[in-house]
Amino acid sequence: MPDHHPSGAVPAELLEAARAVALACADAARPIVRRYFRETIGAEMKGDDSPVTIADREAEQAMRAVITKAFPAHDLLGEEYGSGADAGSDWQWVLDPIDGTRAFITGRPTFGTLIALLHKGRPVLGVLDQPVLGERWIGIEGRRTEFSSPIGGRIGPRALRDLAAAELSCTSPDILSDDAKPRFANLGRQVRRVSWGGDCYAYGLLALGQIDVVAECTMKVWDWAALVPIVAGAGGIMTDWQGRPLDASGDGTVLALGDPALLDTAVAALAPLSSV
Amino acid sequence: MPDHHPSGAVPAELLEAARAVALACADAARPIVRRYFRETIGAEMKGDDSPVTIADREAEQAMRAVITKAFPAHDLLGEEYGSGADAGSDWQWVLDPIDGTRAFITGRPTFGTLIALLHKGRPVLGVLDQPVLGERWIGIEGRRTEFSSPIGGRIGPRALRDLAAAELSCTSPDILSDDAKPRFANLGRQVRRVSWGGDCYAYGLLALGQIDVVAECTMKVWDWAALVPIVAGAGGIMTDWQGRPLDASGDGTVLALGDPALLDTAVAALAPLSSV
Repeated sequence: MPDHHPSGAVPAELLEAARAVALACADAARPIVRRYFRETIGAEMKGDDSPVTIADREAEQAMRAVITKAFPAHDLLGEEYGSGADAGSDWQWVLDPIDGTRAFITGRPTFGTLIALLHKGRPVLGVLDQPVLGERWIGIEGRRTEFSSPIGGRIGPRALRDLAAAELSCTSPDILSDDAKPRFANLGRQVRRVSWGGDCYAYGLLALGQIDVVAECTMKVWDWAALVPIVAGAGGIMTDWQGRPLDASGDGTVLALGDPALLDTAVAALAPLSSV
Repeated sequence: MPDHHPSGAVPAELLEAARAVALACADAARPIVRRYFRETIGAEMKGDDSPVTIADREAEQAMRAVITKAFPAHDLLGEEYGSGADAGSDWQWVLDPIDGTRAFITGRPTFGTLIALLHKGRPVLGVLDQPVLGERWIGIEGRRTEFSSPIGGRIGPRALRDLAAAELSCTSPDILSDDAKPRFANLGRQVRRVSWGGDCYAYGLLALGQIDVVAECTMKVWDWAALVPIVAGAGGIMTDWQGRPLDASGDGTVLALGDPALLDTAVAALAPLSSV
């Protein structure tokens, strides 16, 4: 098994200060995102054809202002505006104001605002905020994940006998590469049921024990960094499809499991078919 | 064009009484469904492998009691308990306490309670209730659809130049039959984007102009009956994949369009490939 918790001293007082700043970011983004939800605004197209909205850009700007004021020396990477002045800090904030733009655009309240803090590339703090429903997950390395929601749910993934009892989720068949499709299908045949849609929200549901496995690919660091401490602090695990710790320079595959005991089985199910 | 509004006198006073009873049903189902949402309850398997929960059965029993008391002479068909004593009435209530059990089980608040009243097989009243979020759509033949929600949105589908600007939605690739898959894929290539997940909720979003097209198959009467007056009363249209009015003895295909002007184009896109 790879080492999923490489040592690296993170001062507790910095984590506390960072927690407060991350929550201030989520608080700043919420009203902006809410204002544009289910409003008819033109969704521009980016070069990579993913949708982006005015809310995305305004929310990221609001969060960048909060972080820059509190931690001017930290690096900052956002899904919309990229990295600012890279000071080569050990600390990097990673933001995705609306993860799940497809859900946002179609009026489904199953997207999220993602805020992560990385220390030497390792996510040590993550916030997943659902601005419309007012739900929030807070994950900090070494602590139990916090969750608050007006519609219910409790932190605690399910322990499972085997994959046959598992609920598997993936945002869309469209995000699976040609190489990944048959591998995902192989995993899908071993679980109880596959459901589609969700983006970051599916990882939040995994932390609640509603979903047991999420497998996706073509994921960027802003898609997964905030989710790693949330899932780990709930008792689950996130790796790539080979069971290795996630890394910004990795292959973009992401596997989340509520029950870490299923890691080897899930990795085997996702192995390239030629190697089976 | 087929006649989507075959004449058939429906007394206004009966519709008013029925509206009150349908809302009483939704009110009765809400707390039951909420109580089980995101609770860990065993989901039994039915013969057809679809999930069903305790909430499903309790909510249907509560709604049946409301209807039977108010309209003892009406027929009643529920997704869980089938039809009761079939008195051969012109009036039939059709219930689906949790449409979108997959969403319910995975903790996504994008399922719904469906309540429909049919007159001689034609849906004249429909309620879509999202019990967890407290959202409600009310459709009555010949009237503008009503909508209330704490998270925003307004009735009013989008008018579109053509399919290329359309958001297409479908609950899951798994509900598409082998015959339907290539036909859906052909439609998918002509729209702007496909999103997955939603069940009845996607039709509600279509009435709000968030989604433009929904195409599904293997649908039962309780899956679509309540949605017909809701979509029609918003300005949209629901037919089968050949553009014919939906019928309980039909082929199970369902097509919903926010903009009825696109019907012919959408039906052509969904035609069996051999006939293209």
